[in-house]
Order: sequence, then structure tokens, then C-alpha cells
Amino acid sequence: MTTSSTEQQVALVALGGHAFIAEDQKGTIDEHEQNAANICEALMLLVERGYNLVITHGNGPQVGNLLLQNETSRESVVPMPLDVLVAQTEGSLGYMLQNAMLNQLRKRSVKRYVLTVVTQVQVDPDDPAFDNPTKPIGPFMSREEALRRARDMDWDVVEDAGRGWRRRVPSPRPLKIIQRHSIREAASQGHVVIAGGGGGIPIMEDKETGEYKGVEAVIDKDYTSALLAHQVKADLFCILTQVPQVYLNYGTPQERPLGALTVEMLRRQMAEGHFPPGSMGPKVQAIIDYLEAGGKRALITNPQTLPDALDGAGGTHFVGRC
Amino acid sequence: MTTSSTEQQVALVALGGHAFIAEDQKGTIDEHEQNAANICEALMLLVERGYNLVITHGNGPQVGNLLLQNETSRESVVPMPLDVLVAQTEGSLGYMLQNAMLNQLRKRSVKRYVLTVVTQVQVDPDDPAFDNPTKPIGPFMSREEALRRARDMDWDVVEDAGRGWRRRVPSPRPLKIIQRHSIREAASQGHVVIAGGGGGIPIMEDKETGEYKGVEAVIDKDYTSALLAHQVKADLFCILTQVPQVYLNYGTPQERPLGALTVEMLRRQMAEGHFPPGSMGPKVQAIIDYLEAGGKRALITNPQTLPDALDGAGGTHFVGRC
Repeated sequence: MTTSSTEQQVALVALGGHAFIAEDQKGTIDEHEQNAANICEALMLLVERGYNLVITHGNGPQVGNLLLQNETSRESVVPMPLDVLVAQTEGSLGYMLQNAMLNQLRKRSVKRYVLTVVTQVQVDPDDPAFDNPTKPIGPFMSREEALRRARDMDWDVVEDAGRGWRRRVPSPRPLKIIQRHSIREAASQGHVVIAGGGGGIPIMEDKETGEYKGVEAVIDKDYTSALLAHQVKADLFCILTQVPQVYLNYGTPQERPLGALTVEMLRRQMAEGHFPPGSMGPKVQAIIDYLEAGGKRALITNPQTLPDALDGAGGTHFVGRC
Repeated sequence: MTTSSTEQQVALVALGGHAFIAEDQKGTIDEHEQNAANICEALMLLVERGYNLVITHGNGPQVGNLLLQNETSRESVVPMPLDVLVAQTEGSLGYMLQNAMLNQLRKRSVKRYVLTVVTQVQVDPDDPAFDNPTKPIGPFMSREEALRRARDMDWDVVEDAGRGWRRRVPSPRPLKIIQRHSIREAASQGHVVIAGGGGGIPIMEDKETGEYKGVEAVIDKDYTSALLAHQVKADLFCILTQVPQVYLNYGTPQERPLGALTVEMLRRQMAEGHFPPGSMGPKVQAIIDYLEAGGKRALITNPQTLPDALDGAGGTHFVGRC
């Protein structure tokens, strides 16, 4: 494999929401930094093979912590809405990733700029998700407190079997990535670009004023990544997750790892219910979205398997219509 | 005044730390948004006159709130270090400014991209500031608690006459703005760039590993702005503050507003002690830094006076060596 064969191709890599905190960790800064270093070391392989990189990432544990801090400090600090908290995590996680990436590049004397773009994503005020909030966020509350907030603050609240009450927000589909031009421009110039963190900061056009306005919602980071992969014309869309491959009949005696699929095969398996909403579903749907919009190649794997996967000896590969 | 006469000139505008929260306000999201809208409306004049814009901003009240939240939630959420909190405010305030700027541009049908760059600023581990922390940050503590943290967490703490104890961190000078190339590139392409928020995220090169590493310090945002103005080759460096002009003998019966000065005059007045460290001092020093590094024109004024100042009928103007 020579570098020149893939030169100037763009790879968009989506990192899982737990990329910065392993399962047995508390989420200290040292853990965040070490995990960011490991991920960026794995991504160096893509840089070495000549790809221009766009990186997206989740923010679940971090935005959860900010929501909890907002609650705990409500008496002394004016709480900020969810869109602002997502923006905070784009700053902090973008910084950690960008710093780790700079260190990996410098260690190898590779000269690339690294840029984190605070990314707004427009959603449709008429998205059916707004009539049916599905995403529980933030700390648990008592029934009393939950009902008070539902009344006073117009929150949608839900009981989570036995564990207490939580707020629930809509999860609309991403329509447009506001900073797509800048991201594409920077990536095509060879810079490593970190964007769309946490699925992006959700905004919508106010129906009366036409102004952009933040909205308290959570956009699925895999859907945003798929849209961004399309909009930056990524040659490869890679979702890094916790498993090395995608499986049929996952978790049953009939479990079978998938190696390579066309979008048609994938769509059929999706319809057959192989990929449940709570786990592989959104990732597979994101891959379908990307390929159906004209995307060429996609890959689902974990960081450890990425080197093999890039040689075709691991991971699950997807191709669009031929 | 025609647009073409100043076309493609770059103006770097530094917004004060309280640009997002007026003195009588609590800092709600509505207040932040309204203030951001007002500031961006004032900056439209620079856009209309053909300037490419780079905007920097302070983050004092916001990072103070995050420190307080970190403290209040210490039992339930792992606290993050100061560099990460600065990164959080670059995300949140960058988002608010960027959204307000997009709305102003859209209202006028001006087609410009707006980009917030998460900005790291390198400082020197041998900067004398590290031996002499001067910047009090975060909430007040009891003497007992302060001394415990000094012992267990290696904090520098100080008693603040009668109000309790606080943590104190170093305020080193900015050496290098890591993302300067991307910022300059984007600004020269006509995009509005928001960068260097809160003086930038302080990092240093680890003496043993050579790696970039975050450091708990606060960089003066006016010094960072001056360095960035130099590095993006800004034609105009404008510091927006709360007063319309700079004064000699400020607050005395001999008070005199300054209209236009050369860097030599300014340096002499600085040496005479006209600009105290706690107020106009760092701004004047930043202007001196910028002009001595070869900068052309600088301006200190407030948003209300900016229109007059751009016509030479207000504000305090500075020019470099002729």
C-alpha cells in the first residue's frame, strides 16, 4: 500500500460517546487524556495512508455531567439550556482531541494543522420528534420535583422504572450542518478537522423572525456524522464503536459476524429487525443514509481492529450502489 | 466611504469579559443572547466597510460560574481543570456569538461564513508568572478549606481582605497561538472567525516528553488578542471596552480624553503610570505590543462609540512607527 494511491481522500471518523471514558472509569481528566491519546494513535494509520481526516464524537457522559452540575448549582449559578451545554462539550472534548492529535502528529513529525469547529446543526421545527420526546437526559428527580418542572418549566418528564423521574427531550433528524463549508474547505486543505461533537448544537429557524435559535434537543451523533460525511464528500465513512464488527442475530446462538455488504443487503437486514434501536440501529441507519446519498465506502469497527480493517481483514465494510 | 477602499483588510476586535453580561444582569441565556445580538449589530459596520473580521472575547463571569459549579458538584461529578473549563467557555460563548453573527448577516443578506476555532495558546513553563500567581479565581473558601487544598491539591491560595480565601493561578504571557494558521487562512478567505476566547486555552510543552499539555493558568485576553492581531496581520486592532475613550489622569480633576497617539507617546504615558494594572493597563500594553510588532492601527472605544470612531470622530486611535 503506497501513500499516493489514496492521497487527498477524505475519511470521516465518528467516535463513540464513550471514547473518552472506558466502562470502569470515573472520567477524570487523566483518563480523558489517555483515551484521547489512544484513539488518536489509532487514527494515525489513516493519516499515514494519506487520508484527510474529519473527526466527529459523542458527548453523552460529559453533557450528562454538565446537566448534573447545572442542577446541583441551581441556587448559585444561573443554569444554561441544553444547546449551550452541548456547545461546552464541543469546546472541552474538541480541545482534548485536538491536543492529543497534535501530540501524535508532532511525535511523527507530520505537519498538519488541527482545527476544532464549533458546529451548529439545523433541525426542522416540524420534525415529528418534537411531538414525541424520546431521549432521557440529566439526573433523576423525585416525582414531585419532576411534575413541578413539567408545570413551571414546560419540561417533558418520564418515570424510569424504579429509578426515579427524568427529563426527556426530542431527538430530531439533522437537516443542515451550518459550518459544512468551512469544515469541507479545511479538510480539503489537509487539516485534521474535529466537528459535529455530540451530534452538533441543535438550532432551528424561528418561524416568526426567521432567526436561528438554539433548541433543547439532542441530535443522534451518527446521523449528524452521516450527513457531514455526505456534505464533505467523504470517500470513507468510518464509525468506531465498541465491537469489532456488526452481527446478524446479535447475542443469540445464531450470531454471525458480517464482513462486507452492499447497501441493498443492509437495508433488507435492517427491515428484518437485526439492528435494534438501542444499539446498532442508529449506526446502521447512518450508514444507509450516507450510502444512499451517494457515499462510496463505509466501515464499522473498533479502534483495535481498525488496522486490520483497513487491510480488509476485519470490521464490517459497506459499499453503495455500483 | 466606499466598501472597496478597505476591501480585504482584516480587523481584529477584542470584546470585553463582560460583553455578554451587563452590570445589572444575572447572566441568563436570554441576556447573553441579547447582548451578543447587540455587539454583533455594532460589528456589522466593520463588515459593511469591507473588513474581514476576527473576534476575540473574554470569559471571566462564565469561567467563574463553571468553577463554582465544579466546586458545588464535587461530590457527584469529577471536577475538570481550569484549561478544560476555558475550553468549555470557548464552545459556549463561541456558539452564542456565532449564532448572533449569523443572524445579523442573514438579516442583511450578506453571505459570509462564521467559524469558531477552539484556540490553544502556548505559554513558557519558565515564565516568571509561574513563581508568582496573581490571578484570583473561583469561589471563596474558609481558611481551613483553603489550607487543606493548598496541602492536598498543591493550590496557591490567598486571603481576600475580609471576604474569605480564594485560589490564585498564574497569568503567563502568550507565546504562540497554535491555531494561528487556520485562523489567518479563514479570515483571509472572508469568513468571520471567532478565536482566542478567554485569552485561549493555556498549554505548554512538557519539558520531559515534549508533548503539549494543558496548564491551570489564565492568559490575559488582551495580550492574546494583540499576539493574534499580529499573527493574522490585522490592519486594525480594536479593543471594545466599557468607556468611549482612554483618559490621562483618569478619575481625577485633571482627567483628559485621548484622541490619537503614536506608540511612542503611549509608551511614555504608560511609563508615567497613567494606566493602572487593574483597569486600562493591560489594554494599553496590548496595543503597545501590537504596534511594536509592526501593527498599523489600533483603537480603543466602546460599542456605542464605534460608528463615530470609524469616522475618526470618537474613541482613542493609535498608530505605529511611521
